[in-house]
Amino acid sequence: MWELQSASFWRAIFAEFFATLFYVFFGLGASLRWGPGALHVLQVALAFGLALATLVQAVGHISGAHVNPAVTFAFLVGSQLSLLRAFSYMAAQLLGAVVGAAMLYSVTPPAVRGNLALNTLHPGVSVGQATVVEILLTLQFVLCILATYDERRNGRLGSVALAVGFSLTLGHLFGMYYTGAGMNPARSFAPAILTRNFTNHWVYWVGPIIGGGLGSLLYDFLLFPRPKSVSERLSVLKGTRPRDASAQPEGTGEPVELKTQAL
Amino acid sequence: MWELQSASFWRAIFAEFFATLFYVFFGLGASLRWGPGALHVLQVALAFGLALATLVQAVGHISGAHVNPAVTFAFLVGSQLSLLRAFSYMAAQLLGAVVGAAMLYSVTPPAVRGNLALNTLHPGVSVGQATVVEILLTLQFVLCILATYDERRNGRLGSVALAVGFSLTLGHLFGMYYTGAGMNPARSFAPAILTRNFTNHWVYWVGPIIGGGLGSLLYDFLLFPRPKSVSERLSVLKGTRPRDASAQPEGTGEPVELKTQAL
Amino acid sequence: MWELQSASFWRAIFAEFFATLFYVFFGLGASLRWGPGALHVLQVALAFGLALATLVQAVGHISGAHVNPAVTFAFLVGSQLSLLRAFSYMAAQLLGAVVGAAMLYSVTPPAVRGNLALNTLHPGVSVGQATVVEILLTLQFVLCILATYDERRNGRLGSVALAVGFSLTLGHLFGMYYTGAGMNPARSFAPAILTRNFTNHWVYWVGPIIGGGLGSLLYDFLLFPRPKSVSERLSVLKGTRPRDASAQPEGTGEPVELKTQAL
Amino acid sequence: MWELQSASFWRAIFAEFFATLFYVFFGLGASLRWGPGALHVLQVALAFGLALATLVQAVGHISGAHVNPAVTFAFLVGSQLSLLRAFSYMAAQLLGAVVGAAMLYSVTPPAVRGNLALNTLHPGVSVGQATVVEILLTLQFVLCILATYDERRNGRLGSVALAVGFSLTLGHLFGMYYTGAGMNPARSFAPAILTRNFTNHWVYWVGPIIGGGLGSLLYDFLLFPRPKSVSERLSVLKGTRPRDASAQPEGTGEPVELKTQAL
Repeated sequence: MWELQSASFWRAIFAEFFATLFYVFFGLGASLRWGPGALHVLQVALAFGLALATLVQAVGHISGAHVNPAVTFAFLVGSQLSLLRAFSYMAAQLLGAVVGAAMLYSVTPPAVRGNLALNTLHPGVSVGQATVVEILLTLQFVLCILATYDERRNGRLGSVALAVGFSLTLGHLFGMYYTGAGMNPARSFAPAILTRNFTNHWVYWVGPIIGGGLGSLLYDFLLFPRPKSVSERLSVLKGTRPRDASAQPEGTGEPVELKTQAL
Repeated sequence: MWELQSASFWRAIFAEFFATLFYVFFGLGASLRWGPGALHVLQVALAFGLALATLVQAVGHISGAHVNPAVTFAFLVGSQLSLLRAFSYMAAQLLGAVVGAAMLYSVTPPAVRGNLALNTLHPGVSVGQATVVEILLTLQFVLCILATYDERRNGRLGSVALAVGFSLTLGHLFGMYYTGAGMNPARSFAPAILTRNFTNHWVYWVGPIIGGGLGSLLYDFLLFPRPKSVSERLSVLKGTRPRDASAQPEGTGEPVELKTQAL
Repeated sequence: MWELQSASFWRAIFAEFFATLFYVFFGLGASLRWGPGALHVLQVALAFGLALATLVQAVGHISGAHVNPAVTFAFLVGSQLSLLRAFSYMAAQLLGAVVGAAMLYSVTPPAVRGNLALNTLHPGVSVGQATVVEILLTLQFVLCILATYDERRNGRLGSVALAVGFSLTLGHLFGMYYTGAGMNPARSFAPAILTRNFTNHWVYWVGPIIGGGLGSLLYDFLLFPRPKSVSERLSVLKGTRPRDASAQPEGTGEPVELKTQAL
Repeated sequence: MWELQSASFWRAIFAEFFATLFYVFFGLGASLRWGPGALHVLQVALAFGLALATLVQAVGHISGAHVNPAVTFAFLVGSQLSLLRAFSYMAAQLLGAVVGAAMLYSVTPPAVRGNLALNTLHPGVSVGQATVVEILLTLQFVLCILATYDERRNGRLGSVALAVGFSLTLGHLFGMYYTGAGMNPARSFAPAILTRNFTNHWVYWVGPIIGGGLGSLLYDFLLFPRPKSVSERLSVLKGTRPRDASAQPEGTGEPVELKTQAL
């Protein structure tokens, strides 16, 4: 529980709250319909992707910019952060998403609000198909994140923020037709609670969580295995302060796994 | 006042003038309506973003490529440049914007000029809502700039220019529906003065200035604090020449805070 | 045949299978028509490009992320991988593509499936013209890949993934009108087998294979020649284990030519 | 005239020929109208930008990937290459452009060819306005190129190819409405000669050449001056072989100014 006394822990929690607030505010806002006609799928997909890219750029070095409970879950499965931090991140993300959606609601003309870009299934898509789609959308996204954040790589990886943002855009270019492209339980939860519409809402939790977990198993255990022992993993999950870090000044005393070198 | 005798100071002022001229010329120009039908929001948003990216690439190492009084204000709040330089930048930006809009006016067929892409409120949006929107648009933009320019980071940040440009694009994808997406008092001021239409013009100053200031407080003091003493801050604001720099040849004798390492 | 006993060889094969599955699933899926009206060419072109970019980011360091028999052929012509590996890659790519298309088929409403984005010739384009177009589309793409992956370069190359992905997008912006933009026999093969429509299918094999081979000859032998002896080339093609690598622990015991430094 | 005996000189000439061929083939090809309706400006602008980005990535380290007589002229004004090389580049570019346009003509259905994306003035734009627009379009483009290629910079510049490509895209987003966005005499020349339509053709030479020269003067002499003596400049322009380079093996015996470190 030493983390609770660390200023950088609270900064990270605040960064996740704040970033998810902005993610939902800008993502949902750019998906509203201001006139007749079909939604401009490419425009919405780029808005979500550039929102994530901007937030990864802005707070990636502070919290890792997960902005998404499914991403935090994937890092948890790979034992890259403590359970305490993981659940704090998720709570901050959900709270931030609801505040962001509420702020969007308050600045938007009533005629434009609609269902606040609620994620819904296409009428021709079954819940089973939708769940599979959400799993695959999140799987490619989480694989891209894990590979991009991977501190073992040192090639020409370019911008972490753009890589991750464009992977999200890709998910939207495909998924918006099927499920509205959730890929993020916090993003799906916020308009559901504001419009009190939870039809098939579980799809937007189960799909991304399975996709995130699968992505972590696939990347960290099969495709590019990390040689971590079980005790090392448990130590990270419990948040045990590493010895060598305890001597460092506050703010850099982070466990090694949190020094996201990529960001 | 030693800065006034420095060639690199005047080069920076000229770069800000020139870059804002181009920003307004290309941004407003790409927002004109050449035919019937609604504005292509994605196209305009990308034009503004790529204009900024191009200018950051071209003159970022000369002046920092603020191109925006709200951005200069944010750097001032974080005491990253002197008061003299800040106000000179703002004057150069406003002058450049007006010249850019005038040049656009002179090369454009009268039927196409319209209101020169003046920023206006959507009829369903109140001035209060508009101000909040401008604050939030600028806040995400300034956070992205401060985090991207931050010389303390050394991760896979990719191109400064694209990161900043795409954050501006994001703001337009959302904001164009609400307020036309000002995010930059110089950009809003230029068509207002040329069309002599100052309705709600204050929104485009108050919103971005508050957003810029908030962004600096959030980033430099809360999320990723800089350990600067008050006297250090005052020394930067007053533009006192640092001792160790005075010995260097002209052109590299910049105060440390101006050697934007990122660019 | 030592490669068959290497875990990293099988990881690479699996990565090619998996990446091509995703490439086809997302690429074809984003090309389906959910409503009336013409296909949004820019949207489809970006979906293919961002799919490739995401996959290069995710598995580039594991297999090189060829995701394309024509690309593997180009690397083979330049003797940058063994014959065994090349044909294993191609088999994995074709299998992955078919599985990806089948998965797409199973999650998509019947009314939307159409011909699963099968590559077809524009009625006004002859098979000769189509073959030339496919050659040129693949040629620019393979040149970009070879130059971007080139471990001899150390300039400001930015993200490998984006460079390669945007080159694919470019090919689609041009080629979709002529041939549907194959550029990848695996991508063309998958919908052909699922819809049992092989009209002019050979164009999508002959064009990309010639384009890939030409690209390798042009880049590796003419534009930026590699000083490799014939015996070195044969040794790579036969997959002979390099002496100095044999002493290394498994997983890093790759032949030098596979340590794609760029990724 | 030692350059004429250098293999790398001829490789560079061939790279310019080849790259301009591809630039014109893909750029013009993506601008053709395959159906009714207005041209999709964003799509065309991205096609030109991504074509340039791909070519800079592919041959930037071989010739610098000017692909444009106005760009070569700008480097000449800054005395960054010899007169012999400059005029050889320009000849290769013009020849490549004509061959590219002819190849496009031969693979395109007659009904689609139109005027092969000839650059024309909007009816409401005078030749004077058009010339000013072409100057400004090329000016921002050349400034971006000079600043991006500048070997004195070492910041977070990201990909040279994308920076330069997106600057070209920006020019098209603005310029296509006014002049069709030439910005490159070779690109404008090729369809003019194939369609034998030289109305106002001089605008597309005078504008870009002035813009390129101005950009070089502005960047290399005013904004970020290079401390080169007149004799150094003359020596580069005459292509005098530098002493210290003459001892190096062929292929790396380039004059210093040609080792484009950025690429």
